[in-house]
Amino acid sequence: MIIATTTVNFAYFTGAWVETFERFKVAVKCGDYMAAVVPQLDAERVGGNVFAYKDGEDPAEALRKAASRCDASVVYVDGGTTLRHFEIIKRALPNAEFRLADEILREYRSVKRGDEIEKIKTAATKIRKVLEAVELTPGITEREAAFKIYSMLYEEGLHPGPILVQFGPNTALPHLEPTEKKLHRDEAVVLDVSASYRGYYGDLTTSFFFGEAPPQYAEIYNTVKEAQATALASAKPGVGAAEVDKAARAVIEARGYGRYFIHRTGHGLGLEIHEAPDISPNSPDVLKPGMVFTIEPGIYLPGKFGVRLEIDVVVEKDGAHPL
Amino acid sequence: MIIATTTVNFAYFTGAWVETFERFKVAVKCGDYMAAVVPQLDAERVGGNVFAYKDGEDPAEALRKAASRCDASVVYVDGGTTLRHFEIIKRALPNAEFRLADEILREYRSVKRGDEIEKIKTAATKIRKVLEAVELTPGITEREAAFKIYSMLYEEGLHPGPILVQFGPNTALPHLEPTEKKLHRDEAVVLDVSASYRGYYGDLTTSFFFGEAPPQYAEIYNTVKEAQATALASAKPGVGAAEVDKAARAVIEARGYGRYFIHRTGHGLGLEIHEAPDISPNSPDVLKPGMVFTIEPGIYLPGKFGVRLEIDVVVEKDGAHPL
Repeated sequence: MIIATTTVNFAYFTGAWVETFERFKVAVKCGDYMAAVVPQLDAERVGGNVFAYKDGEDPAEALRKAASRCDASVVYVDGGTTLRHFEIIKRALPNAEFRLADEILREYRSVKRGDEIEKIKTAATKIRKVLEAVELTPGITEREAAFKIYSMLYEEGLHPGPILVQFGPNTALPHLEPTEKKLHRDEAVVLDVSASYRGYYGDLTTSFFFGEAPPQYAEIYNTVKEAQATALASAKPGVGAAEVDKAARAVIEARGYGRYFIHRTGHGLGLEIHEAPDISPNSPDVLKPGMVFTIEPGIYLPGKFGVRLEIDVVVEKDGAHPL
Repeated sequence: MIIATTTVNFAYFTGAWVETFERFKVAVKCGDYMAAVVPQLDAERVGGNVFAYKDGEDPAEALRKAASRCDASVVYVDGGTTLRHFEIIKRALPNAEFRLADEILREYRSVKRGDEIEKIKTAATKIRKVLEAVELTPGITEREAAFKIYSMLYEEGLHPGPILVQFGPNTALPHLEPTEKKLHRDEAVVLDVSASYRGYYGDLTTSFFFGEAPPQYAEIYNTVKEAQATALASAKPGVGAAEVDKAARAVIEARGYGRYFIHRTGHGLGLEIHEAPDISPNSPDVLKPGMVFTIEPGIYLPGKFGVRLEIDVVVEKDGAHPL
C-alpha cells in the first residue's frame, strides 16, 4: 500500500490538482484500488473513491476507511509528507510498518502514460510558439522581457514556471534570475522558459546573438548544437542516462570547452520541472519507453557569453524524439 | 533547541528567503544562537553562521556542526519538515528526543517585529494603490481583470499572491477563482488582492457596485462596513480573537444577515497569507501588541451578490490600527 500526500503525487494518482495548503489530503493506492482523502471543501474536485472530512473532524477516521480495502501491514509513505501530517497517518494506521515510498513513486512517475505525454507536448509546443513570437528591442530589461514572456504564456493558457532571461555577460551565469540589466546591440541572449499545461511542464531554452556575433559565438553555438544532436541520437531504451550525458559532454570536451559545461545534460519533466530520469554523469537511471526529459547542454565563458540549447524529448521504442 | 526547515520558518529566523526545492536546509535556534545549514549553491544568500554542504556531501554532517553549540537532548522540529529531510535530522542528532515545534513557531511568528510590520504596511499600501488605480470596463472578464491587477502589483515591485475577481452573482461565492465571466453594467464587483513585499503579505478586499445598485446593496454594504468598524474597535491587547469575530458577527446578525456571513472574520498576516492569530468564533488566540491580521466580514446573498470589506490591522498598546 502506498500513501501519496504531496500535491504532485496526489495529482499523479487521482488526476486532480488540488492544493489544500495546511489541510490533510492523501491518495491511497493498493493494486488497482485507489482512494482519496480530502477536505470536504475540495471533495467535488476529485473523482473516484473519495473520503471527505469536514473542518473539526479527524482526517485519520477518513483515512482509516479509505485504507480498509488494502493490506496495511507495510505502508510506503510519500517522503514529502510533513511530520504534522504523518501524525495523522500514524493515528489512522497504528500497526503499520512505515517505509519511504520515494523510490517507488520516482519509478512510477518517470514513465509517462500517453495522456501525460500529450500534455507535456502541448506545453512545449506553446512555449516554442512564445519563444518564436517574443520581440526584444534595445533597452528592454531582463525583468521586463521575462514579464513579457510571462504574459504571453498566460495568454496561451499555460501556467508559467521559472523564466530566465539573460543578456550579455549574464548569459554566462546559467542560474541567474532576471535583473534590471538592459539589452544592448551586439549582446548574447539566453531565454530559458518553463510552463505547465494542465499540470505538466515543458521547459525550453533558446540562445542567440542580438546584433553582430563575434566569430567564437558561432563556433560555440554549433558545438552545443552538435552536443545536443549527439545526445539525442544516443538516447534509446536500455541506454543509461549517464551515457546520454556522456555523449553530449564528449562533443564539448573534444572542442576543448569541457570545463565550461558546468551542469548536467538534462532532467526528467512531468508534473514537476525536475523529476526522474536524471541525465547526469553519475545517474543510475536507465532509459525506458515513455520517459520524458530535457537535453540542454551549454557552454559558459565567464565575463563573455553563454549558450544553452534545450529541447524536450520522449523515449520511444526506436529512440528519443523531440516533443 | 528549534529546527526550522520550511522556507517560511527558515526566512523568519534567518531573514533570507531561500527556496532550495528538494535540497535540505534548516535554521537552528537555541537562546541567542542561530545557525543555518544550506546547500553550497545558496550559501551567499544567507548571513550569519552558515554551514554549507556540497551536492554529494551528507547534510547531516553540516547540521551536526551547526547544532554543536546547542543542547540537543530535546529538539523541537518544524512540523512542515518532510519525512525525507527528517531522516537527515535523525542521522545528525541520533540521541535527541524530537517534538513538534509548531506551537512554539506559531507563537513566535504571530507577534511581529517592527521591520516585519513595516514590510506588511508597504505591501498593504501598494495593494491599496493598485485597487484604487485599476480601471474596469464593461466586457472585461474576471480573468483579464485579475491579470491586469497582477501586472500592476508586479510593476509596484510586489510579488502577487492569490487574486480574486468576481462579477455579478459570482460575488456571492467568496472563494471562487476568476472565471471567463464578463463584467456588465449594474453588477456587483469584489476584488480580493494579496501580494508580498520582501516576503511579507498584505491582503485587501474592496467591494462596489458597477452601475446602479439595488437598494439592498447599500444596506448590506453599510452593515459590513459597520461590522468591520465594530470589530476594529473591539481589538485590543488581552482581548480574545474570538471576541473580535463575535463583534463583527453581532452587527451582521442584528440586521438579520447572520446566516449569510459564512466565513471567519479574519486571519493573521506575515510571511504567509494565513497565519496566527485566527480571528474566528472558536479561536483560542489572545491579542498581543505586534499581532497583524485582517478584518474581513462579508455578506453573501446566493444568486444575487456579495459584499466583503477587508483591511489589515496591527495591534498596539492602545488598540488595533489599520496599516
